[in-house]
Amino acid sequence: MTDINDIDKKRLADELPKLKDRFEAFKAEGLQLDMTRGKPCAEQLDLSMDLLECLGRDYRSESGLDCRNYGGVDGLPEAKRLFAEVLGVAADEVIVGGNSSLNLMHDAVARALSHGVPGGDGPWGAVEGVAFICPAPGYDRHFSVCRHFGVDMIAVPMTDAGPDMDRVEELVAGDAKVKGIWCVPKYSNPTGVVFSDEVVDRLANMKAAAADFRIMWDNAYAVHDLEDETVPLKNTLDACKAAGNPDRVLMFCSTSKVSFAGAGVGAMAGSVANMDWMRQHLSMQTIGPDKLNQLRHVRYFKDLAGIKAHMKKHAAIIGPKFEAVLRILGAELDGTGVGTWSRPKGGYFVSLDVVDGCAKAVVAKAADAGVKLTKAGATFPRGEDPNDANIRLAPSLPPLSDVEKAMELVAVCVKLVAAEKAGIA
Amino acid sequence: MTDINDIDKKRLADELPKLKDRFEAFKAEGLQLDMTRGKPCAEQLDLSMDLLECLGRDYRSESGLDCRNYGGVDGLPEAKRLFAEVLGVAADEVIVGGNSSLNLMHDAVARALSHGVPGGDGPWGAVEGVAFICPAPGYDRHFSVCRHFGVDMIAVPMTDAGPDMDRVEELVAGDAKVKGIWCVPKYSNPTGVVFSDEVVDRLANMKAAAADFRIMWDNAYAVHDLEDETVPLKNTLDACKAAGNPDRVLMFCSTSKVSFAGAGVGAMAGSVANMDWMRQHLSMQTIGPDKLNQLRHVRYFKDLAGIKAHMKKHAAIIGPKFEAVLRILGAELDGTGVGTWSRPKGGYFVSLDVVDGCAKAVVAKAADAGVKLTKAGATFPRGEDPNDANIRLAPSLPPLSDVEKAMELVAVCVKLVAAEKAGIA
Repeated sequence: MTDINDIDKKRLADELPKLKDRFEAFKAEGLQLDMTRGKPCAEQLDLSMDLLECLGRDYRSESGLDCRNYGGVDGLPEAKRLFAEVLGVAADEVIVGGNSSLNLMHDAVARALSHGVPGGDGPWGAVEGVAFICPAPGYDRHFSVCRHFGVDMIAVPMTDAGPDMDRVEELVAGDAKVKGIWCVPKYSNPTGVVFSDEVVDRLANMKAAAADFRIMWDNAYAVHDLEDETVPLKNTLDACKAAGNPDRVLMFCSTSKVSFAGAGVGAMAGSVANMDWMRQHLSMQTIGPDKLNQLRHVRYFKDLAGIKAHMKKHAAIIGPKFEAVLRILGAELDGTGVGTWSRPKGGYFVSLDVVDGCAKAVVAKAADAGVKLTKAGATFPRGEDPNDANIRLAPSLPPLSDVEKAMELVAVCVKLVAAEKAGIA
Repeated sequence: MTDINDIDKKRLADELPKLKDRFEAFKAEGLQLDMTRGKPCAEQLDLSMDLLECLGRDYRSESGLDCRNYGGVDGLPEAKRLFAEVLGVAADEVIVGGNSSLNLMHDAVARALSHGVPGGDGPWGAVEGVAFICPAPGYDRHFSVCRHFGVDMIAVPMTDAGPDMDRVEELVAGDAKVKGIWCVPKYSNPTGVVFSDEVVDRLANMKAAAADFRIMWDNAYAVHDLEDETVPLKNTLDACKAAGNPDRVLMFCSTSKVSFAGAGVGAMAGSVANMDWMRQHLSMQTIGPDKLNQLRHVRYFKDLAGIKAHMKKHAAIIGPKFEAVLRILGAELDGTGVGTWSRPKGGYFVSLDVVDGCAKAVVAKAADAGVKLTKAGATFPRGEDPNDANIRLAPSLPPLSDVEKAMELVAVCVKLVAAEKAGIA
């Protein structure tokens, strides 16, 4: 939260004529830049080009299975092993699917609603007012799934260590209608927060009024470090087991931002009871996933070490774009009081909080000069940011020079809108 | 239906000692043959090996789209065009998905239940006793989807021209709880029946008590001819449009038995209203399908003519297996009265009807000698064949010599079980 009363009005007023000129100059340039989504850029996709050819004509799995044919509803054994290593679980605690972890998450929620989950007493859809906790700002597509299925969303603030656990514990203990929580535990979308060990432990141990409460653990950025050292994340399945709640968590990840965003491999993990549940449902939906693409990924990456080495190449491409965002925000906004922002060590976003009541206006103003940002409010349930303050910046896709230009414009817009709000402009 | 009173008891009694010897001889061989599912054999999969390499490093669609990246929730435009040609619809009436048409069908039913369909007045799941018509014998996985979601199944007999339309019309006109019908309209699973023009027209024109009635048109064998000439199938979307019921049909198909059974491409088609409905739901579930695999298929097959040429190669491989099945059934069973069977001009199955009350015993007896057949009853809703007569034969997977051996054993079992039933043995 950035209050209008805390801004440096004097400095803003002095800078105002220049800001107006700069904005008009940007506008005259006729920019057309897109920073709306966390899409990898072409150079990142180029890193995995050998994936396209690594299969050759050898379609057999390590056990000799013909991956061209039907079968294997929960994925190729060696693909399960690879994702088990990524998620820190056993291979029989993994299901490897198609190209989309969102698809696995959506379907898990749909199944919980239509049939219920292990340990529950029936379909969640039969519960009047079934609700999910939505740490916010968060990932818009998680919120869309809830909205789509009529699941109530209870926003809980994000802290630097994860969701506000006092509030989460209170909600989960107090109401059996609260059946789940969405989490992006590492390099969270959009805040970049990595959940602390304490948060993981509290999630695993908290009392739940609903015996079938589930943590939707979207570890989308499990290996997506921007710096040499990763930020450690406590193993939540282990924590849940230790807490005596082994079925509490469903983990998800994918190679969408490792190999190809449109043609990667998604996976989920959890207790064997949860995986058996998912397998039973999957066997109604499909004869099996695309094993050839799973085989490609195993052949190409081999193991977690292979993935980590590959991710360093990603970091070398997008790291400078993140640095540019932080450098320009710092140079333009430090000391003005018109904004605060995250300094992520991984993931795909910088989260910018502008003066309360200004986010929509900033996004509109940037669009007016040709830079598309994620819709203001998108990072909150129902698209409603109560403070109208949060803006998600996604610098991965445009070239570095475009990111620099876009961020200068964004900074100018942030200051101009704050000045208007303060009655200076 | 084959009644025990109609069999040639004299001939069976004469043959009995020999049949017993033959059965014991088969048993002594220690066979291990699997004819349970319609899986392509390795030689068929070999036909598409160039598909694995046809992409090279060229990942761009014809419009220059980077197919490695996110996007395109309803499929690659050129893939939509290809499937539009296969299904005889316009490109904007097609959605191309992942590797499984069963997945698209399952999800369509799930969405109808959770949200309803265009033209309806709410979720089908809210309708007490919601039911589907299930022409039987039919495809077990269709029936599994209904069972999974608690949709009642009303079995309707198959005739040589499609489902018994008098019965279908009566059910659909009489009860708004009847929301759908499963159809495999060409080379039906397992009967091989191709729906007649009259059946297609009656399905399109029939009065439906439910305004949101849907035909689930699983055109799984659209291009899967065994003979040079295809058996024409009337275009059901055209028929539905002409009848003023443009939203009545949802069509499905895939390349599972064209390219790779585990790594093909599935598609669905229907009115733009239906496709918009599906797109809206899909956009909650995924950012998009694997466009690289769609691109592979378009590059490799090019158009319907390319697919048809390819399918002739499939027919050359599996045609002799079907001929062997028919030849052996004819030689062994003709004139005995112990069985009747289909003579399909395409598809993947031969449907064998044995003496009423004998199918389970025949399947068990064949298994006893090492030949696994599809579970008796599987071709009926809830696995319950009221006559215990139908056996699905799937000759595509085993080598020709194994098919011959398996069919001889099956014929021996059919006769032995009939003899037991008749009190001869």
